[in-house]
Amino acid sequence: MIIILKDNPEEKQLENLIAWLKSMNLDIHFSQGKNTTILGLIGDTSAVDIDLINALDIVETVKRVQEPYKNVNRKFHPQDTIVDVAGAKIGGGNFQIIAGPCSVESREQVCQIAKDVKKAGAHLYRGGAFKPRTSPYAFQGMRSEGINLLLEAKKESGLPIVTEVMDLSHLPLFEDVDVIQVGARNMQNFELLKELGHLDKPILLKRGLSSTLQELLMSAEYIMAGGNENVILCERGIRTFETATRNTLDLAAVPLLKTMTHLPIVVDPSHATGIAHLVKPMAMAAAAAGADGLMIEVHNDPPHALCDGAQSLTPEAFTDVVEAVNAILPHAYKG
Amino acid sequence: MIIILKDNPEEKQLENLIAWLKSMNLDIHFSQGKNTTILGLIGDTSAVDIDLINALDIVETVKRVQEPYKNVNRKFHPQDTIVDVAGAKIGGGNFQIIAGPCSVESREQVCQIAKDVKKAGAHLYRGGAFKPRTSPYAFQGMRSEGINLLLEAKKESGLPIVTEVMDLSHLPLFEDVDVIQVGARNMQNFELLKELGHLDKPILLKRGLSSTLQELLMSAEYIMAGGNENVILCERGIRTFETATRNTLDLAAVPLLKTMTHLPIVVDPSHATGIAHLVKPMAMAAAAAGADGLMIEVHNDPPHALCDGAQSLTPEAFTDVVEAVNAILPHAYKG
Amino acid sequence: MIIILKDNPEEKQLENLIAWLKSMNLDIHFSQGKNTTILGLIGDTSAVDIDLINALDIVETVKRVQEPYKNVNRKFHPQDTIVDVAGAKIGGGNFQIIAGPCSVESREQVCQIAKDVKKAGAHLYRGGAFKPRTSPYAFQGMRSEGINLLLEAKKESGLPIVTEVMDLSHLPLFEDVDVIQVGARNMQNFELLKELGHLDKPILLKRGLSSTLQELLMSAEYIMAGGNENVILCERGIRTFETATRNTLDLAAVPLLKTMTHLPIVVDPSHATGIAHLVKPMAMAAAAAGADGLMIEVHNDPPHALCDGAQSLTPEAFTDVVEAVNAILPHAYKG
Amino acid sequence: MIIILKDNPEEKQLENLIAWLKSMNLDIHFSQGKNTTILGLIGDTSAVDIDLINALDIVETVKRVQEPYKNVNRKFHPQDTIVDVAGAKIGGGNFQIIAGPCSVESREQVCQIAKDVKKAGAHLYRGGAFKPRTSPYAFQGMRSEGINLLLEAKKESGLPIVTEVMDLSHLPLFEDVDVIQVGARNMQNFELLKELGHLDKPILLKRGLSSTLQELLMSAEYIMAGGNENVILCERGIRTFETATRNTLDLAAVPLLKTMTHLPIVVDPSHATGIAHLVKPMAMAAAAAGADGLMIEVHNDPPHALCDGAQSLTPEAFTDVVEAVNAILPHAYKG
Repeated sequence: MIIILKDNPEEKQLENLIAWLKSMNLDIHFSQGKNTTILGLIGDTSAVDIDLINALDIVETVKRVQEPYKNVNRKFHPQDTIVDVAGAKIGGGNFQIIAGPCSVESREQVCQIAKDVKKAGAHLYRGGAFKPRTSPYAFQGMRSEGINLLLEAKKESGLPIVTEVMDLSHLPLFEDVDVIQVGARNMQNFELLKELGHLDKPILLKRGLSSTLQELLMSAEYIMAGGNENVILCERGIRTFETATRNTLDLAAVPLLKTMTHLPIVVDPSHATGIAHLVKPMAMAAAAAGADGLMIEVHNDPPHALCDGAQSLTPEAFTDVVEAVNAILPHAYKG
Repeated sequence: MIIILKDNPEEKQLENLIAWLKSMNLDIHFSQGKNTTILGLIGDTSAVDIDLINALDIVETVKRVQEPYKNVNRKFHPQDTIVDVAGAKIGGGNFQIIAGPCSVESREQVCQIAKDVKKAGAHLYRGGAFKPRTSPYAFQGMRSEGINLLLEAKKESGLPIVTEVMDLSHLPLFEDVDVIQVGARNMQNFELLKELGHLDKPILLKRGLSSTLQELLMSAEYIMAGGNENVILCERGIRTFETATRNTLDLAAVPLLKTMTHLPIVVDPSHATGIAHLVKPMAMAAAAAGADGLMIEVHNDPPHALCDGAQSLTPEAFTDVVEAVNAILPHAYKG
Repeated sequence: MIIILKDNPEEKQLENLIAWLKSMNLDIHFSQGKNTTILGLIGDTSAVDIDLINALDIVETVKRVQEPYKNVNRKFHPQDTIVDVAGAKIGGGNFQIIAGPCSVESREQVCQIAKDVKKAGAHLYRGGAFKPRTSPYAFQGMRSEGINLLLEAKKESGLPIVTEVMDLSHLPLFEDVDVIQVGARNMQNFELLKELGHLDKPILLKRGLSSTLQELLMSAEYIMAGGNENVILCERGIRTFETATRNTLDLAAVPLLKTMTHLPIVVDPSHATGIAHLVKPMAMAAAAAGADGLMIEVHNDPPHALCDGAQSLTPEAFTDVVEAVNAILPHAYKG
Repeated sequence: MIIILKDNPEEKQLENLIAWLKSMNLDIHFSQGKNTTILGLIGDTSAVDIDLINALDIVETVKRVQEPYKNVNRKFHPQDTIVDVAGAKIGGGNFQIIAGPCSVESREQVCQIAKDVKKAGAHLYRGGAFKPRTSPYAFQGMRSEGINLLLEAKKESGLPIVTEVMDLSHLPLFEDVDVIQVGARNMQNFELLKELGHLDKPILLKRGLSSTLQELLMSAEYIMAGGNENVILCERGIRTFETATRNTLDLAAVPLLKTMTHLPIVVDPSHATGIAHLVKPMAMAAAAAGADGLMIEVHNDPPHALCDGAQSLTPEAFTDVVEAVNAILPHAYKG
């Protein structure tokens, strides 16, 4: 970490700063220019609060040279992490499609779609049991019963299950789930992340709506710091001024994250765009850009044909997406 | 709610849509123009998923006429809500300043600052026991011990206590806390909000970094739907492209929220700007714009004089802010 | 256009509104619900100021049903527009790569790179003669002399030339240029757009840093309204809170624009990301998503090897990008 | 400027970098740490392209220590600039209200409102003759005739005139205008800014929709670099994800800009919010935060009573705003 001081820093404050830095076991390398004093901090600066230093009266600016993350950092783990979900490998050249309905609604629905998406080529099955809903009056999901139905679908289809946790008190219900998803709204629910760090189950961590890539990696670091190395990152769109799509899918995040971290990265074009006909081109673009997988909403309960136009595809449309993605994959960016 | 259909909507889909709307006990009012068919939904539409409808193939666009919130809606509760915190009233013309350190660090620190801010004119005392930190390696707060120290400071100073909860499993520790704060990162932690709805303690709900005003109100609605009517909203800056300040303080939110809701609104200029010398002018501007209170970080542990330049003020600087705000208040916007 | 009125609208205001709407030759279709009055406007609403209506006291909300753009609207021109630049066709299934240096620096540089990119597979040559620079002290481009050098490079290489105009007073200098580029900062320079509408030369219109897709189309509409139908749109990243890349490339804009307009769309991964190693994966993703072309910065002046790491690629790296894109193209999204 | 190099920088690139920096007359101060090499650049770095350096392979990060602006920098001009507009002083403790209609529509309208706002307490009169309109089909303003009408209103009322220029070719028409306004969309129209730098007329420069404060200052630097020192900055809201207001008024920009520059800063609450009832509280907040003036839309043409609810106030409502602001001013933030 490099601290650039203002001209003529107040001496007492400078002494305080240096004493405080030394109390964190950092060595300090002074560089005195004509108008500028630079402090180079040597040692482990990952616990140093850069905002605090930046706000000091005597400090002009601070820059990290070291990244504040260690376990997720590709510098220290050059090899791609491969997360193995009941035999379905993600990362390190292994591409997987996770598909399924937004919400679990009934046994029949959840088992039928599982069969459909398996046939179309998905290797993991997703479905929402606990649903984060903006309105307290909206359907909040089938909750524990929904998890049971997902496990039945798993038994019938053989597909491993991905589903979202909304609170750490619910974790016992997730014992037989294969991948626990942390939703965008919980990306910085640090108490939850800490608990997930003590599991040995794969975690799918979605980027928050307004989270930087560094913040996403810091949240993954929370999980890995607890000992759980099976983290899958998920780019699912960020909130911007543009309202033509629900969010703005930040696809450049995929190759950029690859240089920052060894963790696999999947892309969710369904939530990112919120528009069914954009799922296919964005799935194809994500594959081309080097993503390690996709997460796609598929829905086919015929009495709810209603949903045809939504971000959810029918199994037929999903089959078409899988084929289009498979045609891209051999030519995709490899880094 | 108004649904505008595309030209020549596919009939089967239209039937499905209508059947589904009727299943939610809504009456439908048809209006057939030359090129445009409009459905007007009559009844309680607060549970209707507008995104879902918007995404249907046959739908051109949907607009809510009714707001999706009820309990927080000023239309149904024209009178200002006044939240009473151990005698300190907030809202309905009552203005309060909440002040205190970012983190609880020691008994001496927390009790000293309490005395200082009381003398300067604060009526509520804030301090962080549980700290949401981006890095797992950063100080995570004194946690339950920190709450105990805050309660001692309360005993010594007589000031009611405001402190942040990070997980619903910690709630039992907050029994003697006067106001429970929900931080920006937890604004959409719906399981937590539900639990807080069952308490009768005031809740200070901070706007999320990328949350719209409507989303803030929907989160307040979660709390009120559970029966807890003591909700204080807090504007604390949103994330934008501008990095000169930590966040962008959205002061127009104050008078705009006043037209949407009867709940009191306080402003946190410390977190919003992250720059100490901006706290005073933004506190003054918030008062002028009609805010019901302020939340300001104050720090005075002398061995940490280090923090002088940060978003935290010294008690002396805080006294100056209180005086400047008090001079504005008699002339402030009243709506 | 649909106008939804508030309950019990003030009558005099309603009369004024109706009179004003009728003065614009619009027919009004009334629909009176229990609590809601809806006005449906029939006729050409493209000149109606939706912001103005939205802000009226008596209006709850307004929604366009018709888009405010006509000439660029795919509804009225279902066939893809194909822009022909001296034989290089863009759009309607024709994909082109525009490449060249950021700035024109010397005759030798500009002619050498032209040969290099032609060999690598580019069909149009770009280079900046007039440079929009944030700082008045930075190099402002070679200006008219730069255009002359580009024309020499055209003569030598046979590649048509794309270069940016910064002010309408410079237009006479662009007579022999093949495509006039409007930069992001000038996307809403309406006086310039009007002038370009009177030319019959292809215009490459870049999306503004904070422009919505609808605003981009409205700017294209300015050009087409003047009679010039040769407009190529360019997605080049938008400004968001994320600073890890220079801008956020909004690739979903490509397939979404295709449903809104018949105009061709190219993608500029160089400016969007500002990071050289992201140009290749983002070029591949853009091709996969159905873009009609790419715009890529290439630089090879050896004494300036300095630029190796910037957003500019060397001709060797560019050749690699072209090959990777060509491998994607046969499998790309076709709509 | 401080350049931090990556570990083991490629030597040839480093030599190129150093040669290039020296070619710009910069001295280089080396500081070699264990893992980190730091280059400190000494000399005038305002013309150095920080993005270019940042993008080099061998560079970890770059930080400016010097700001890239000189003439507008408060460091070099500690005294507040006071802009004198025909006797109406702005800045250095002088506060002025600029008021008038959005568009000039008729002689009667423009002269009547001038009298009204003068009576209410405005000291400068604004009105749009050239109107930047998103749609080519919308009313584009009365243009040169509109300027003549403004000049008549000036003669009748005695108020100096502020009006917007849209293209440098129109400048001759602005000879008798007192303040030339540069709109948000033209903030980075550098050719226009250069021309304005050669005038000795005050320029009101509006912040672009997605411009940082530093970019705003760089645009002011363009004008001052040409010799024109009469620049007034205007904060008018930035584009964010929040759509409840038209833009997000960034009031913290006012006291922050005061520390960065000596130029006066006015605030436009009308355009920033787009909602009439927010103009008063935001005008009051701007005054409290230390703004040097306000720019407010006022409209009163009775046959267009239509506009009552828009961002434009009636003269009566404007009088109320002026009184409320005047009550705040004696207690406002002084820096």
